Amino acid sequence: MAVYTEVSDEELRHFLEPYRLGRVIASKGIAEGVENSNFLLQTGSHSYILTLYEKRVRPGDLPFFLELMQHLADRGISVPQPIHTETGEALRELCGRPAALFSFLAGLWPRRVHPWHCQALGETLARLHGATADFDGRRENDLSLAGWRTLSAAIGQRADEVAPGLADELSGELEEIARHWPSGLPAGVIHADLFPDNVFFLDDKLSGLIDFYFACNDFYAYDLAICLNAWCFEPDRAFNLTKGRALLSGYQKVRPLTPAERTALPVLARGGALRFLLTRLYDWLNHPPGAFVEPKDPREYLSKLRFHRGVRGPEDYGLPLHAAA
Amino acid sequence: MAVYTEVSDEELRHFLEPYRLGRVIASKGIAEGVENSNFLLQTGSHSYILTLYEKRVRPGDLPFFLELMQHLADRGISVPQPIHTETGEALRELCGRPAALFSFLAGLWPRRVHPWHCQALGETLARLHGATADFDGRRENDLSLAGWRTLSAAIGQRADEVAPGLADELSGELEEIARHWPSGLPAGVIHADLFPDNVFFLDDKLSGLIDFYFACNDFYAYDLAICLNAWCFEPDRAFNLTKGRALLSGYQKVRPLTPAERTALPVLARGGALRFLLTRLYDWLNHPPGAFVEPKDPREYLSKLRFHRGVRGPEDYGLPLHAAA
Repeated sequence: MAVYTEVSDEELRHFLEPYRLGRVIASKGIAEGVENSNFLLQTGSHSYILTLYEKRVRPGDLPFFLELMQHLADRGISVPQPIHTETGEALRELCGRPAALFSFLAGLWPRRVHPWHCQALGETLARLHGATADFDGRRENDLSLAGWRTLSAAIGQRADEVAPGLADELSGELEEIARHWPSGLPAGVIHADLFPDNVFFLDDKLSGLIDFYFACNDFYAYDLAICLNAWCFEPDRAFNLTKGRALLSGYQKVRPLTPAERTALPVLARGGALRFLLTRLYDWLNHPPGAFVEPKDPREYLSKLRFHRGVRGPEDYGLPLHAAA
Repeated sequence: MAVYTEVSDEELRHFLEPYRLGRVIASKGIAEGVENSNFLLQTGSHSYILTLYEKRVRPGDLPFFLELMQHLADRGISVPQPIHTETGEALRELCGRPAALFSFLAGLWPRRVHPWHCQALGETLARLHGATADFDGRRENDLSLAGWRTLSAAIGQRADEVAPGLADELSGELEEIARHWPSGLPAGVIHADLFPDNVFFLDDKLSGLIDFYFACNDFYAYDLAICLNAWCFEPDRAFNLTKGRALLSGYQKVRPLTPAERTALPVLARGGALRFLLTRLYDWLNHPPGAFVEPKDPREYLSKLRFHRGVRGPEDYGLPLHAAA
């Protein structure tokens, strides 16, 4: 839920001029995405998304994100494609902020997730990983182990304001996850934030992926573990095995997991839950009163974290006991 | 800035079915309007606005608003036109809320108002008033004198939290405005909330009016006085005589004001300023901490109210001393 920056008609017209889009007949601030200001622009024949990057995105990371989207689009992954001006610029400035214009992706994100969504997501995620293999850009995942420690330290004892004993539970988790964190798994550029509101569907097919502003280099299987967290739990916080199975089988249809990835899945899922628990907890404890964006309840991810702590092995997520033949 | 209600894909599909729009390829919550949830829907060829009415709108008023919009559209005023289902329904229900689908209006609202905007607004406002003359619906203005008294009583001494002495100033204003409030002026259905974000322009022409959810029966010249307040002051709170003159001359090009309306203009403008001062003050003092919608600064309208208190006559708004020949 965003749109922080008010763009005047004159500024908009001036900004759009070098794209030669034709007459812009509408511009609506869209209430999706919490990091940036997004506007849906319409010409007579096309729609575009105009994004103004607000303070949560580091300007230095923007070339990585835009080049990644272009790279993926070039390889047939349906993502917002940066539009270039006549002189070849994609990353520009508007109202004192970095700004970019993108192709518009048709589709709706699923408010209610069904297993077939998970299956389609798994397939596309594996294709996304394949398509990043020859991408040159690199961005460290600043929300992995080291980042979690920093966040956890910044939260400190205040975690107990959300759930009694949570501060101790978090440091215990952090230690244990660090001890079991894998190394040497297949890695590359991952999306790292593939929640349902970042995945569009049209006519019962996945039609596109958006919001690459957490993309970074990490284990492919960690991306999958984030999706397990984001797509396969019910509103009552129970894990849905059918959805887990659908996600994993969709993924393996395109790229079978290695034995090491299979073994690591529970700790990766646990790490993924801890990552969103920590950021939500931090935002929950630190949002200014009267803040514009309603922070998300961190307890959802605490419950997921505890689920992962209790799993016996990858089969608890719906992974077949042995790699598919 | 809204979108309060999350609509699932299934609910949306089910709701849209009887309109026979064809395939809906996108639905975006729009961050405009504070009263309702608005979604921009796109099919391959058309755009629509889907509105879910949240609690600030009285369901009993909705037939009036929808019939008014239809009536205006039938008379060539560019407003969102309620779309009917195959069986002729326009007002329906979605997610437990009243809901309606409208045609999409092209255009952008002016973030920076120029005199030519005011001129075009004046002309269209006069045409709007003409077009409501044969409209049968009726809705009392619950934000006129009686409503101001209720609001003022509800605010009470807390007004002083915003500006010292404001509570006394308000009751004095209320008394004086009531004493000079006109009667018998030309009246009919007015928009009553025609702020810049409710007026779209395209190619330097006014392309449409939206947000009729304060429309009611009152003096036509009061609608004009609201526009004087909303369009003709600068960000530094100074009245811009050029804009006032443009608004009034645009209006009079289509419908010349009567002598009684001309004489009443200052008290109508003062009443219009008081109306927005009171509602903003009430919202300012009563918004819950952490509220989703940022309340608007009431002091902007206090400054306008004081300006109107000091005017000598209608010529101070840019009205020629004598009716145009």
